[in-house]
Amino acid sequence: MNDQKQVEKWGIFEVSCKGPVEGNPFTDQWIRGTFVGGTEEVTADGFYDGNGIYRVRFMPSFEGEYHFRLEGSFALEEVEGTFTVGSPAKDNHGPVRVVNTWHFAYEDATPYYSVGTTCYVWELQDDERIEQTLRSLEASGFNKIRFCIFPKHYDYNLGEPRSYPYEGTPMDSSVLTKDNFWNYTGKAEGNCWELERFCTEHFAHIEKCILALQQIGVEADLILMHPYDRWGFSCMTDRQDDLYLKYVVARFSAYRNVWWSLANEYDLMGHKTVQDWERFADIICKKDPYQHLRSIHNCVHFYDHTRPWVTHCSIQRQDLYKSAELVNEWRTRYRKPVVLDEIAYEGNIQYGWGNITGEEMVRRFWEAACRGGYPGHGETYLAKDDILWWSHGGLLHGESWKRVKFLHRIMCETPGVGLKPKGREWDEICAVPEDDRAAFETGYHLFYYSFMRPSFRDFHFDDEQEYVAEVIDTWNMTIEEAGSFTGKFRVKLPGRQYMAIRIRKRCSLVSENVI
Amino acid sequence: MNDQKQVEKWGIFEVSCKGPVEGNPFTDQWIRGTFVGGTEEVTADGFYDGNGIYRVRFMPSFEGEYHFRLEGSFALEEVEGTFTVGSPAKDNHGPVRVVNTWHFAYEDATPYYSVGTTCYVWELQDDERIEQTLRSLEASGFNKIRFCIFPKHYDYNLGEPRSYPYEGTPMDSSVLTKDNFWNYTGKAEGNCWELERFCTEHFAHIEKCILALQQIGVEADLILMHPYDRWGFSCMTDRQDDLYLKYVVARFSAYRNVWWSLANEYDLMGHKTVQDWERFADIICKKDPYQHLRSIHNCVHFYDHTRPWVTHCSIQRQDLYKSAELVNEWRTRYRKPVVLDEIAYEGNIQYGWGNITGEEMVRRFWEAACRGGYPGHGETYLAKDDILWWSHGGLLHGESWKRVKFLHRIMCETPGVGLKPKGREWDEICAVPEDDRAAFETGYHLFYYSFMRPSFRDFHFDDEQEYVAEVIDTWNMTIEEAGSFTGKFRVKLPGRQYMAIRIRKRCSLVSENVI
Repeated sequence: MNDQKQVEKWGIFEVSCKGPVEGNPFTDQWIRGTFVGGTEEVTADGFYDGNGIYRVRFMPSFEGEYHFRLEGSFALEEVEGTFTVGSPAKDNHGPVRVVNTWHFAYEDATPYYSVGTTCYVWELQDDERIEQTLRSLEASGFNKIRFCIFPKHYDYNLGEPRSYPYEGTPMDSSVLTKDNFWNYTGKAEGNCWELERFCTEHFAHIEKCILALQQIGVEADLILMHPYDRWGFSCMTDRQDDLYLKYVVARFSAYRNVWWSLANEYDLMGHKTVQDWERFADIICKKDPYQHLRSIHNCVHFYDHTRPWVTHCSIQRQDLYKSAELVNEWRTRYRKPVVLDEIAYEGNIQYGWGNITGEEMVRRFWEAACRGGYPGHGETYLAKDDILWWSHGGLLHGESWKRVKFLHRIMCETPGVGLKPKGREWDEICAVPEDDRAAFETGYHLFYYSFMRPSFRDFHFDDEQEYVAEVIDTWNMTIEEAGSFTGKFRVKLPGRQYMAIRIRKRCSLVSENVI
Repeated sequence: MNDQKQVEKWGIFEVSCKGPVEGNPFTDQWIRGTFVGGTEEVTADGFYDGNGIYRVRFMPSFEGEYHFRLEGSFALEEVEGTFTVGSPAKDNHGPVRVVNTWHFAYEDATPYYSVGTTCYVWELQDDERIEQTLRSLEASGFNKIRFCIFPKHYDYNLGEPRSYPYEGTPMDSSVLTKDNFWNYTGKAEGNCWELERFCTEHFAHIEKCILALQQIGVEADLILMHPYDRWGFSCMTDRQDDLYLKYVVARFSAYRNVWWSLANEYDLMGHKTVQDWERFADIICKKDPYQHLRSIHNCVHFYDHTRPWVTHCSIQRQDLYKSAELVNEWRTRYRKPVVLDEIAYEGNIQYGWGNITGEEMVRRFWEAACRGGYPGHGETYLAKDDILWWSHGGLLHGESWKRVKFLHRIMCETPGVGLKPKGREWDEICAVPEDDRAAFETGYHLFYYSFMRPSFRDFHFDDEQEYVAEVIDTWNMTIEEAGSFTGKFRVKLPGRQYMAIRIRKRCSLVSENVI
């Protein structure tokens, strides 16, 4: 059964046991565990992992001695045991939670400033590419990645995945070409799946990938459903959908870096209704003991992000020209963190969502950040081998990803947790700390000038305090001191695009040993 | 009295005579003329031009023999005469009129595609700079310029004008600095004007400038009122305002290239109400025998462009990010030509309206043009001598002006008169001829990709006709043939920003001898 006696806080305690193989264990059997420590009692569903093995996973949120007890639909060899939860390792800050209404922090209170990317099926590529993607992520500084559990059928991604989520055989993909692939979306002919028998290797592999992300500090924003489908996974029955979601939650929810994205472009999934999405959300809310972050991502029409189960807005921009610039509006409307999971991708493919410049991508990142939102990246450069980061991962070819760590550093230097937009002049974006007290104490102001090119800007904060100004080149990633000021002062700028000015009270820098 | 016996159609026939000098001839006397040809009879007010000289001007709209008769408040030496109107010179196409609801043409039916610029008080600079401005205009290809009759008091423009519109003396401007000039706006102390006695040299000089513009094919979009004022001209009495407008119309309306812009940023003129603007419009409508184009330009809030006297929308963009992109909306709302007189200026000054790049300016030009609107330019680069094109004219320093002739050429190649936006794909701007017949016969489509960088685009018009495609680099000003196509076809693009594709039926090019 189980030899694990020790686990770190927010790590995974797993208990496994043997059980029936006959019939369909995925539907005929069930197992669950109850985990009791000094401060919490958690009941978590287990799952069948094939070969007669059943597993139950648990993520402890407190340190100390724990006791567990299993129960199931079949006779269990052992039903209880104990283990010890130790302190978390240095880079383990727990799952990400919503804080300060519009922001995120890890459960240990470390602020989490989300700078994400999207590689829809990076984990369904071969081992070499997966390894390459992980190294690219590490170098880039992205701390969230969106990807799908189901394979993806879409332009530039017509190949077969490394595995399928179900037992069975797919349609013959040799009929596919770049021109006819749209004919094979949805319930295409020729697929033969047992949609109540999971391919456990598929899920075990995804777990390995989630864990690999965890090890490099990247949150796994798991897309549970999506419409880019030739296998019929986007139009299963209610019973099959529900079974799938319960299985995913039972397997994955003990991974602290998991987020649930109910769908990508939910509004393109013609077989699903609002009632379905609400039912799916209900399953996740009830079955996930850890209440990981939950969202649902649009193509054209936003889902109603005011729904209580939606922890944060996962937004695809609705306008060709304005995207991150609307964060203020969305913050006000939804009073939840605003995550811009698609604000177009840097690249040069034929589609308007995938051909903006690196400069424009970085500009949207800064617009989002300075308005108190969280930007997301993607890259879609044409490649001879049709390997595009946005779909497959691999190597990053663009310019915008190189600027992400720099922005993230600036975000992390926010006093308190999170920035908010401050209405000031019409021709600047002004960010101040979300926490009023931190804002007051530090006098922190971050001004961003986007595509504008002022040669100087005049300020007048107050006549008592001394302020330190810095000129930030967001593209060239430089920070230059621009002097100390009291009363009215002028900050000179180089008359280039993409500049920012950061102003802080000198006393706050002294007290924090910044200077 | 008058020796002029011959005038070209749309030229100026002027008759002058001597009259009283005592009292205030501007208010005590009046004179007007009635001009009768075979096809028209026009009555036009005359004006006092100082030194006992009164003048009446007339712009004939038809060729042939004309008779005139004067009447006035004083005894006239001669009261009638005849003259002949001959055919217009080669470059004289008459005044610009609205055609096809959203577009312009000269009165001789030559399409007029407006590409304007703004130099608010270029004509109140010294002779050398005025000459320089005219040569810059000629080189640039701009065919409209906005400027003010009253002098301008604003940042970068604090000097004295070459003349004032009234007899009297201005406040002492030695008190002005870059920092305190806002304290001297509106009814500043120290001005001493006779606001019912015009300085005729001021107006005579402006006429010379209007004529100089006419000679290089540039329309004079005269700004009648504006708020950038330290002399009190923005807050005169109703009687003084009305007297001013009547004087301006009497003097300038015979110049065929005159447009009336009632105000720049009317909504910043706190002393004027909607009733005032409507009264001013009424005066102009009644007094201008030629019904020159009329508009009124906003700062923040649009005037109601649906008012019947408004011939076209003169728009300052209301949003930092979207400007020319909104032309479709404004066309639909107002069903009038949409002229984007301020969509921000290329430059690097501190204000957000004056520091966009040349690339962004040209992008806005193309966005406007491809949506069936008309773009306007301005340039605000910091200069050691504080001479900024937007205010003073002089030399052009930027990059956008160099691309104006090229765009204008493309606009002029539109079949029929005017382009309109066609809703097609969400990630392209598509323009077709406003005239449905011209659109059908030529199959003309102009696609613009703005900041997007597609490496190719696929099209499918119809399976019968042969189409010729051209790839246009709007920044580098090149047009390259991309082949002939029937049915489905792909046009390759270089994956750069600011590209356009023009597609036309081959038969239309053959019939027009284009190929």
